[in-house]
Amino acid sequence: MATINGVNVDQLVSTIEAIKEDPGLAEFRFRASTEWIEGGHSRTRIQGFYGAGAEDTSRTEPFYLDGDEPPVLLGANAGPNAVETVLHALASCLAVGFVYNAAAQGITVESLDFELEGELDLHAFLGLSDDVRPGYKNIELTYRVESDAPREKVVELCEYVQRTSPVLDLLRNPVPVSVKLEEAGAKA
Amino acid sequence: MATINGVNVDQLVSTIEAIKEDPGLAEFRFRASTEWIEGGHSRTRIQGFYGAGAEDTSRTEPFYLDGDEPPVLLGANAGPNAVETVLHALASCLAVGFVYNAAAQGITVESLDFELEGELDLHAFLGLSDDVRPGYKNIELTYRVESDAPREKVVELCEYVQRTSPVLDLLRNPVPVSVKLEEAGAKA
Repeated sequence: MATINGVNVDQLVSTIEAIKEDPGLAEFRFRASTEWIEGGHSRTRIQGFYGAGAEDTSRTEPFYLDGDEPPVLLGANAGPNAVETVLHALASCLAVGFVYNAAAQGITVESLDFELEGELDLHAFLGLSDDVRPGYKNIELTYRVESDAPREKVVELCEYVQRTSPVLDLLRNPVPVSVKLEEAGAKA
Repeated sequence: MATINGVNVDQLVSTIEAIKEDPGLAEFRFRASTEWIEGGHSRTRIQGFYGAGAEDTSRTEPFYLDGDEPPVLLGANAGPNAVETVLHALASCLAVGFVYNAAAQGITVESLDFELEGELDLHAFLGLSDDVRPGYKNIELTYRVESDAPREKVVELCEYVQRTSPVLDLLRNPVPVSVKLEEAGAKA
């Protein structure tokens, strides 16, 4: 079994081959359920998803993620806030993309880390302006990589990962989000 | 002290008044640092941010968020994956917006929860297609609210929150993300 960077390269190759033969295997449906607790605090449960042609059963326990605001934003710091969590999602996505693609090319990654900063103006969130966008004005991300590959190879990999990262794509390009309000009492 | 839904309404009103007087107080800079651990696993540290005219010091300990992939995506389930985490960020953002705005209007929220599902085709991530987008094709979100407000008020609040939610905005509309690769060895 060939493992590079903790990635089973044989499995990676056979996954790619399987999807080439049956493109439907690439269709995934990820899910989350979120419950509001109090004030700015809510908790999300993540466990099952559909992918590779079946419901996944690998997670015997769910993951729980807490979101809250800091006191200056009227919360109690029970967790990072939603926009901070987006920064984590972005870096975690680029990390997977970088490390998997490095493994596929036989490149050993010694270390990989990211610093992120996002600039946000609260006027829209607080209902004080229709001109200011509610979300991030911009996000700045810095990569640091140590590997056995020559610098130009790392630059190339970094550029490739930017074209294929799901979270980078959903930030840079619009995602259709449908929002439905259920009838009260519709919860089973 | 007037508290509704766990939100200090007096503080909410005085925050809004303060920003009306000094718009610069609404400028926030959120940050995260992410370190790759192994395979699909990385860990993000979130603590300080700049906002309301100062560096925040309310968090005596950092938050840590783990990201990983499930085995079918070559990971070890050390955490939810990046795109699942985005679903959490979206719901947690809408929860804050709904509950804060309800509090400002004197509406008591008894319960609030969300179900989310996002559809994603892995062809782009795996380098098998340039036509398929890497990120979510779409996200479907369902709200469930129980409150003391009439239904039409809840519908109105739900619509208002959609116009002012930072995470919904950054999904529905493009965010400029700048990615910089530091020189190897540049880490202090």
